Amino acid sequence: MIPPARYTPVEEPPIFGAMSPPLHIGWTDDHHVRILDQRHLPGEERYRVLTSVDEVAEAIQSLAVRGAPLIGVVAAMGMVLATGGGDAREVSAAAERLRATRPTAVNLGWALDRMLARAAQAGGQGLRQALIDEADAIWEEDQAMCRRIGEAGASLLADGVTVMTQCNAGALATGGIGTALAPVYLAAERGRRVEVLVPETRPLLQGSRLTAWELARAGIACTVITDNMVASRLAQGGVSSVIIGADRIAANGDVANKIGSYAIALAARAHDVPYYVAAPRSTFDPACPDGAAIPIEQRGADEVSMIRGVQLAPPGVAVWNPAFDVTPAAFVCGYITDAGLLTRDQLREWRDRGKD
Amino acid sequence: MIPPARYTPVEEPPIFGAMSPPLHIGWTDDHHVRILDQRHLPGEERYRVLTSVDEVAEAIQSLAVRGAPLIGVVAAMGMVLATGGGDAREVSAAAERLRATRPTAVNLGWALDRMLARAAQAGGQGLRQALIDEADAIWEEDQAMCRRIGEAGASLLADGVTVMTQCNAGALATGGIGTALAPVYLAAERGRRVEVLVPETRPLLQGSRLTAWELARAGIACTVITDNMVASRLAQGGVSSVIIGADRIAANGDVANKIGSYAIALAARAHDVPYYVAAPRSTFDPACPDGAAIPIEQRGADEVSMIRGVQLAPPGVAVWNPAFDVTPAAFVCGYITDAGLLTRDQLREWRDRGKD
Repeated sequence: MIPPARYTPVEEPPIFGAMSPPLHIGWTDDHHVRILDQRHLPGEERYRVLTSVDEVAEAIQSLAVRGAPLIGVVAAMGMVLATGGGDAREVSAAAERLRATRPTAVNLGWALDRMLARAAQAGGQGLRQALIDEADAIWEEDQAMCRRIGEAGASLLADGVTVMTQCNAGALATGGIGTALAPVYLAAERGRRVEVLVPETRPLLQGSRLTAWELARAGIACTVITDNMVASRLAQGGVSSVIIGADRIAANGDVANKIGSYAIALAARAHDVPYYVAAPRSTFDPACPDGAAIPIEQRGADEVSMIRGVQLAPPGVAVWNPAFDVTPAAFVCGYITDAGLLTRDQLREWRDRGKD
Repeated sequence: MIPPARYTPVEEPPIFGAMSPPLHIGWTDDHHVRILDQRHLPGEERYRVLTSVDEVAEAIQSLAVRGAPLIGVVAAMGMVLATGGGDAREVSAAAERLRATRPTAVNLGWALDRMLARAAQAGGQGLRQALIDEADAIWEEDQAMCRRIGEAGASLLADGVTVMTQCNAGALATGGIGTALAPVYLAAERGRRVEVLVPETRPLLQGSRLTAWELARAGIACTVITDNMVASRLAQGGVSSVIIGADRIAANGDVANKIGSYAIALAARAHDVPYYVAAPRSTFDPACPDGAAIPIEQRGADEVSMIRGVQLAPPGVAVWNPAFDVTPAAFVCGYITDAGLLTRDQLREWRDRGKD
């Protein structure tokens, strides 16, 4: 939890409206990148303007912005900041600097490759505007993608249901209305009452800090639980489904997502609660055969042993802190994607056809 | 996390020795009750002298002392504080005050009933000394009980094994060397290297704050993980067994223990890791037919939404906070008790014979 270097307070944070989450990224007039620094939620809504590639890289690495799709959008926007000198080599260096920030999310590499291709195409003079256009296109596609995931999943959520999610795969994880939460926002927009069960998601508490915050801002009912209550809550009954996001989906359907997702899958299966994975097609990685091939980021001990300077474990104690786990495809009832609700077989078929 | 009212610093906290946990309760010379206030661990070792029944009740209710066996011992010691006026009615009132502090732990009622029976037997003049003797007997029996549990379980722990526990069912939860951790201390005493995996155990973090602290104090290797890493860690392999404590065991073998124990049982079964429950016979409740009949304490929202004054979830958000969950008997490979390592059938047989 490194305090951000600079803030730009926003007088009136824009809100889409009731049942919609807040808008949290944007350009400034001179195409610097404005972000909501998510490390200060839920206590404070601090906006920040990033003016260099290093600042964007630091924001991604320190989790000021996080969530696979959002990282892709912000990294793309960040590439524009490398075009000040008009030197194409700076653009490639920026891409490599940004690519190194987080190893697991596939969207990051995908967005950077798109930006590099556009840069190569544009050449010298029109470079900056070309990269702005490409970043805008990536952002707009992300918003549309979220909306399509919402459409694909909203039919699963009848009026009055309770759904469990994990971490934050909501608006704050994307440039739009989220992935796992998109069906919830769409169902709410259509007048259905949906309640969301939110595991807090240690160590960084994206569930209680971010998901509960954005749902509360949108006026959607939610209940926070600690991660070790998941199995017990599912055993109580009354939960219609689990919808979680994904950081990478392997060719065989195995899913890498925030640590704890696998535990939820085990408990969901034990209590016959369907477990869905919501993700854009850019999260599918046909080159990755299965979960065992997905690199899992190991993070520092302090995230577990401290919270905001408070020592939770004896100083120096050994800690194991993987950021993600892998849920085998057999646990997944369906993939809620921007190409519709897919079974594992449909997912494989789609993969065999290649990305369209 | 209410700050305790008064402290008595101890110049040199007594330690049993290497591979043994610290001594954390005791009498003062005038038979007030000295406790280690566990709410300040792992950062500070604060000792506190309780001089009234109300202070003892508050210490139990606020979790300054916690753990089913320890609550029984401290409540028994606390009863002595009601004998100042020499009025037998004060003794019954004290028992009722203490009984109301925690609804789930069966040891509390059991210890108080023993103290009341001894008080009734003693009558007026010898009342105070009789209650001191009875509390000492309960404490000594608790120490012997821990040791016998350790003997029963140590054979499960070969040299070099890794064992997972949950919450704190260690020395800090008893008047002796613990229940779930007793086999670990005994194995270590016999020269075997045992490593302990410690889930932090939200919301109150008894794993990272207490178990990791007492193991580190005893020189036993441990690794702290967040609760949502349990399933993923068991999936990695290399964990020889899970040993957890119990707050109440029903007649059919169902176990109420700290929230998250059921999730560990599900994950242990999925990965063929044997799941043992370590508990004294006083934790068995033959009058309780099964897990559904065990009352589960619901605790306040702030435990989940805040840590030491830091807001982790949006203020006012709904929270579900059960202190315990129930693990069905079918998940339990064996009960490590002060009467030896029992199967579910042996447990039932022992129950049918009645407590001996």
